[in-house]
Amino acid sequence: MTEFVLIHGSWHDGALWEPVATHLRDAGHTVHTPTVAGHGVGVDKAVDHADCVASIVDWMLEADLSDVVLLGHSYGGTIIARVFEEIPERIRRLVFWNAFVPAPGNSLLDEVPPHYRELFSQLAAASDDNTVSMPFPIWREAFIQDAPLELAQSTFEQLSSEPFQPFVDKLPLTRFYELLPTVGRSYINATEDTALPPGEWGWHPRMSGRLLGARLVQLPGSHEVMFTAPALLAQKIIEAGRD
Amino acid sequence: MTEFVLIHGSWHDGALWEPVATHLRDAGHTVHTPTVAGHGVGVDKAVDHADCVASIVDWMLEADLSDVVLLGHSYGGTIIARVFEEIPERIRRLVFWNAFVPAPGNSLLDEVPPHYRELFSQLAAASDDNTVSMPFPIWREAFIQDAPLELAQSTFEQLSSEPFQPFVDKLPLTRFYELLPTVGRSYINATEDTALPPGEWGWHPRMSGRLLGARLVQLPGSHEVMFTAPALLAQKIIEAGRD
Amino acid sequence: MTEFVLIHGSWHDGALWEPVATHLRDAGHTVHTPTVAGHGVGVDKAVDHADCVASIVDWMLEADLSDVVLLGHSYGGTIIARVFEEIPERIRRLVFWNAFVPAPGNSLLDEVPPHYRELFSQLAAASDDNTVSMPFPIWREAFIQDAPLELAQSTFEQLSSEPFQPFVDKLPLTRFYELLPTVGRSYINATEDTALPPGEWGWHPRMSGRLLGARLVQLPGSHEVMFTAPALLAQKIIEAGRD
Repeated sequence: MTEFVLIHGSWHDGALWEPVATHLRDAGHTVHTPTVAGHGVGVDKAVDHADCVASIVDWMLEADLSDVVLLGHSYGGTIIARVFEEIPERIRRLVFWNAFVPAPGNSLLDEVPPHYRELFSQLAAASDDNTVSMPFPIWREAFIQDAPLELAQSTFEQLSSEPFQPFVDKLPLTRFYELLPTVGRSYINATEDTALPPGEWGWHPRMSGRLLGARLVQLPGSHEVMFTAPALLAQKIIEAGRD
Repeated sequence: MTEFVLIHGSWHDGALWEPVATHLRDAGHTVHTPTVAGHGVGVDKAVDHADCVASIVDWMLEADLSDVVLLGHSYGGTIIARVFEEIPERIRRLVFWNAFVPAPGNSLLDEVPPHYRELFSQLAAASDDNTVSMPFPIWREAFIQDAPLELAQSTFEQLSSEPFQPFVDKLPLTRFYELLPTVGRSYINATEDTALPPGEWGWHPRMSGRLLGARLVQLPGSHEVMFTAPALLAQKIIEAGRD
Repeated sequence: MTEFVLIHGSWHDGALWEPVATHLRDAGHTVHTPTVAGHGVGVDKAVDHADCVASIVDWMLEADLSDVVLLGHSYGGTIIARVFEEIPERIRRLVFWNAFVPAPGNSLLDEVPPHYRELFSQLAAASDDNTVSMPFPIWREAFIQDAPLELAQSTFEQLSSEPFQPFVDKLPLTRFYELLPTVGRSYINATEDTALPPGEWGWHPRMSGRLLGARLVQLPGSHEVMFTAPALLAQKIIEAGRD
């Protein structure tokens, strides 16, 4: 039995884990799916990366969780790397699922290709609250291309605007890389994930390779396999999270 | 219901799509499989790339097709890129299946590794009609390695010699790259396709990456999965071609 | 019916092929699984690479085997490359399964990333018989990450210390590369194999690409899929080994 804490990515909130969490619970595991500060519908979007991290650290301390497998999806990778810096003693294993593992000192923006950097900056500037909204064509073609159109549309309606400042903040991650050899670490890669373009800017092995011999687990599917194949993803999370 | 136009690759003709076309039709779709000029058995091989393109454009105009999903396999990628330049208003989505997406100004020969360039040139020079015949060992080991030997042999007997001039002709593709953002575009990649050697000269992400955020669909199999797994390929063509 | 000779990798011996060999025999094939000199429990570890090669060549001559499909796993790739140099006339096809195909003049150590080079050298220096013992965390996370913990542990107990000198010996391989075009050659790649880190130092296409258009066969799984999915590996060995 494993205690999982699942940290969602950009445009998502904790409630969207439900299909995956149900499969994990059915397999006998405990699952927590907190929402990161500034994420979800109808909340204050004026947060920076430190606020996002603090919201999860505070929540874990209040819930007094320990010996957890902490998983981050996409942007959530930047959160779990920082949470691990703050409370490493409570974390048994880190699991990055098509997630950012920023190089020391980099922001998330530094880790995406130039055309995404420009697009996100323009969308934030055009918003009235410094957020980035997901354009449907990108969602449908690059994030959830393995879904029928109806599922692509219904999940799109559940997304929320993403605060931009956490994309911009630089993350030293000095302690993260110091402590990394002391913790279990896994990388889950969906082989058709094109949220980052495959190749030079791809997730794997660029991000996975920074984890120093992490356990690699792969599955077919897009960046949003949590919606298109939740049972398979749950199985791979179990394989990534076990001892 | 989608209207598919499937453009075959080198050494093939339209009739060889039959197993795939049958599965697509069984799923309720309309399928056309024209043969490109200079291709097939017993036809005049003295064609250039423009002749090949014109043969498909003329055929589509005569059949008065519109709103089609136009798919190209291998060499067929050079054809659909050019057909799209000529009659973009008739095309709903381009699907490249392990197909060439030539960089602006390149010929097909410019896009293959030097040892293939040399081999094709030698074979054409040794022929009496400036064509390239497929050597069986390359067919068996690099194109259809997932088939039993019997299927490799029976399909080999259905191949025809390939006109060489269309490999040599340079393709500006100025209008193709200008119009690309306005059309749906997908790339299907068979993960064991070694018709181009994996890595620096491979199909994916080298070719797929030129399509600016195209929808990626992958399946296991060789370059000739149309013969070795036609039902699976048909399913992936549907996923690549839907809205 | 094919006659297979399977050459194990480092830390393994011939007996560990049993689950795979059983599946191959059930499919009607003949299978031999000799142990390389200096490998296994309770044997003299003072061997160099030439001793390892000679032990297999001598065994094949004594058994008077010919027309065999010779497969090497991992380190076993360096053995089959050299055995082929010595008795090419007895070999129908070479199959490298996530195996080293050393560049001309290289040792195995030259082909692994610097941190492995350093680790193996340190472990050998710290041993009393110039051998390298497999650390359990590397076995569990990088070699057999697709196994449940119990299988990772039970297989770990079957490993034996690896003689270091064969890692160090330079292999000219002049004749190997000269004769390579004359023999059937296949590369089997398990897509989650992280015994070599994916990317710049990975198995595929770095090693497979040296085989000049070898037949590529892939399967999901780790470096030790012989333990985690022996039936599937046997099926892929058959696909790799057939004409």
